[in-house]
Amino acid sequence: MARVGLADTTFARFDMASVAKKELKSLCSVGIKHRTVPGIKDLPVSALNLLREGCDVAMAFGMPGPEPIDKQCADQASTGLIRAQLMTGKHVVEVFVHEDEASDDKELAELAEERAREHAKNVYRLLFKKDELRKMAGTGKREGGPDAGPLRR
Amino acid sequence: MARVGLADTTFARFDMASVAKKELKSLCSVGIKHRTVPGIKDLPVSALNLLREGCDVAMAFGMPGPEPIDKQCADQASTGLIRAQLMTGKHVVEVFVHEDEASDDKELAELAEERAREHAKNVYRLLFKKDELRKMAGTGKREGGPDAGPLRR
Amino acid sequence: MARVGLADTTFARFDMASVAKKELKSLCSVGIKHRTVPGIKDLPVSALNLLREGCDVAMAFGMPGPEPIDKQCADQASTGLIRAQLMTGKHVVEVFVHEDEASDDKELAELAEERAREHAKNVYRLLFKKDELRKMAGTGKREGGPDAGPLRR
Amino acid sequence: MARVGLADTTFARFDMASVAKKELKSLCSVGIKHRTVPGIKDLPVSALNLLREGCDVAMAFGMPGPEPIDKQCADQASTGLIRAQLMTGKHVVEVFVHEDEASDDKELAELAEERAREHAKNVYRLLFKKDELRKMAGTGKREGGPDAGPLRR
Amino acid sequence: MARVGLADTTFARFDMASVAKKELKSLCSVGIKHRTVPGIKDLPVSALNLLREGCDVAMAFGMPGPEPIDKQCADQASTGLIRAQLMTGKHVVEVFVHEDEASDDKELAELAEERAREHAKNVYRLLFKKDELRKMAGTGKREGGPDAGPLRR
Repeated sequence: MARVGLADTTFARFDMASVAKKELKSLCSVGIKHRTVPGIKDLPVSALNLLREGCDVAMAFGMPGPEPIDKQCADQASTGLIRAQLMTGKHVVEVFVHEDEASDDKELAELAEERAREHAKNVYRLLFKKDELRKMAGTGKREGGPDAGPLRR
Repeated sequence: MARVGLADTTFARFDMASVAKKELKSLCSVGIKHRTVPGIKDLPVSALNLLREGCDVAMAFGMPGPEPIDKQCADQASTGLIRAQLMTGKHVVEVFVHEDEASDDKELAELAEERAREHAKNVYRLLFKKDELRKMAGTGKREGGPDAGPLRR
Repeated sequence: MARVGLADTTFARFDMASVAKKELKSLCSVGIKHRTVPGIKDLPVSALNLLREGCDVAMAFGMPGPEPIDKQCADQASTGLIRAQLMTGKHVVEVFVHEDEASDDKELAELAEERAREHAKNVYRLLFKKDELRKMAGTGKREGGPDAGPLRR
Repeated sequence: MARVGLADTTFARFDMASVAKKELKSLCSVGIKHRTVPGIKDLPVSALNLLREGCDVAMAFGMPGPEPIDKQCADQASTGLIRAQLMTGKHVVEVFVHEDEASDDKELAELAEERAREHAKNVYRLLFKKDELRKMAGTGKREGGPDAGPLRR
Repeated sequence: MARVGLADTTFARFDMASVAKKELKSLCSVGIKHRTVPGIKDLPVSALNLLREGCDVAMAFGMPGPEPIDKQCADQASTGLIRAQLMTGKHVVEVFVHEDEASDDKELAELAEERAREHAKNVYRLLFKKDELRKMAGTGKREGGPDAGPLRR
C-alpha cells in the first residue's frame, strides 16, 4: 500500500492536514503518517524523515505570515523542502497559504481548505495517475482558486 | 540512443514540452521521457529522477507568475534545478517564461513557443553539436526573441 | 536519557539558553550540552556538532539586528540550520528574536525570555509528546506572544 | 601540465574566453579545455564537469542582463559555482560582467576584455604564484578597472 | 599544536589577516596557514581546503563593496562559508567589513583592524577557552565597535 507523509505546523491557523487526509482517503487506499512541528522551518527535516521512514510522497502544510521576514522564512522552508526531495528522489508537495493571500479569516480558511484538497488530488495523481497529470501539462491549473486555464491565442 | 527528459507543470498556461518534443524529433533521433508535476517547485526532483533513470539531459519548463512571491518560487526552483545538475553531472536546460515578460496572452504564448523551440535546439547542440555551441560563445544569443548579438565596438 | 544541545551567541543581548535550560529541567529529565559561539552565522556548525555528538535535538538561539544586512545574516544562519537538520535527520529548533520585534530593551528582553521558554516546551513535545503536538496542528500557536488562534469562519 | 577549464555562454555578448585563453598562453604553459553552454545557469554543472575531468582550476564567464530577474539568475549561477568548488576542492574563478556596469557597448566590451584578462592572471597566480597572491592580500585590487588600492589612514 | 587557517582576498583594502595573525601569536602558540584569493566568492573553497588540510579552525576575511550587487556577493560567500563548515564540522569565523560601515578610509581601516583583532580573540576562545565563551553568552558583544551589552530590564 502506498504511504503518504503529512507534515504540518502548530503555527498555521487552519488544520489543512485533516482536509488532505480526508480527500486522500476518499480517492484511494493509502497509509497516512502525520507529524506536527512548531513552524515552517521545522518542516524540511520532518518531511525528510517521513520519506526516509517509507512514505512514497509527502505533503508539507504551512501558513506564512504577511511580513517580509515571513516571506524570508517561507523561502528558507521551501528551499529546505526542495533539498529534502533531492536527497530522497521523492516528491514533497508544498501546501503553503500566505496570510496576505486573503482579505479576512473566512476567505483565508476557505483558500486553505480548497488548496489542501486540490493538492491532495495532486498527490493522488503523482502516486497513481501520472498519465492524467501529463494530459494536464500547460493547462493553467491553480490550487485553491479558479484555474487560469491555457493561454488564449 | 540519447535520451532527453522533459519535466513540466500543470500550472503553466502553455504546453511547451510538446513544442520541444516536436523540435527535438525534427532535429535528431532521441528517446523522450516526459513527466508532469503540479508547479515549478516540483520540477527539481522530477528532473533529478529523469536524469537518474538514464536521461542524458533534461529540460524543465515553467511559467512563473508576475508577483514578488512568484519570483521567489522561481528562484527556489532554479536553485534546485542547479543542484540536481550538480548531483548528476548532467545538464537541465531551464525553460522558464515569466508571465510579466509579455503584455498579453497571445504574445506570451508566442514567447513560450519560441523559447521552448530554441532551447530544444540548445539541448540538441549539448548532445550532438558541442563544437557548434563553442563557435556561438559570446555572440549574444537570446531564446524566444531577437538575438542581442555581439557587442559593437 | 534524552539529550538536548543548546547553541547560542555572545552577540545576543539576552541569555535565552539559561531560560530554556531551566524550563526543560522543570518539564523533564534531559541531559544538556551547551556551546556558545560569536554570532548567528557560527550556529549551524555548532548545532550540527551537538547533534553528531549525540544530542537528540538542538536549540539555536540568536538575536539578529534590525538592519537589512542583519536580516541577510539571519537568512544565511537559518538556511544553514535547516541544512544541519537535513544532514542529521534531527530537529534544531531556531529561537531567533529580531531586535526590531520590540520597541525597547525591556520589551525585547521579555519577548526573548518568553520565546525561549515556549520553544523549550516545543522541544519537550518533540522529544516526548508528539501526540500533543499533533493535536495542536493548525491552531495558530505563537512563541513569545499571544497565540493567533485558529481562523474564525 | 596544469589544465584550465573554460566555461562560457552563448548569451554573453563578448567572447571573454578567447581573451583569457590568449592571456594564459602568454603567461604559462597550460592545457585548456573549453565548453560553451546557453546561459549562466548552465555554467555550474559545466564547470563541475571540467574540474572532474581533470582541470586544476576553471573560469566561468557570463554577462548577466540589467534587470532584477537577471540579478536573481546571476545569484543562482554564482551560488552553484561556489557549490561546484566545494564539491571538488578546486577554484572556479567567476568572470561575470553585468550589462549595467557600463554605459554603452564599447565600454562594456572593454570592461569584459580587461576583466577576462586580469582574472586569467589570477588563475595563473592560483596555479603557480601563490606567494605573489599572498603579497597582494588586502591591497584593493580590481579586475577590469583601476585598482581601489589599500585604505589611506 | 593547534592550527588556524587564514583566507583573505586581494580585493580587500586592508590587510586584516596580518592583524589577526599577530593577535593570535600574542595569545597562544598556534600554527598558521595563510591563503590569498582574488575575491570573497573564492573564500569558501579556500577555507574548506585549509580545514581539510588539517587546520582546526579558519578565519575568512573580506571587504564587500557598498552596492546591492556587493551585498549579493557577500551573501553567496557567507552561504558558501557556512556550507564549508557543515562539510567539515569545523568553524570558519567570518570577518567581513562592509565598505558602507564607515564614512571614510581612516574609519574603515580602524574598524577592519579592530574587528580582525577581536575575531582573532574569538578564534582563540573557540580553540582553548570554550568556558569563557559560554560565560559571555547573551552579553551583547560586538566585534570592531563598542559592545551593545546585555538588555537593560
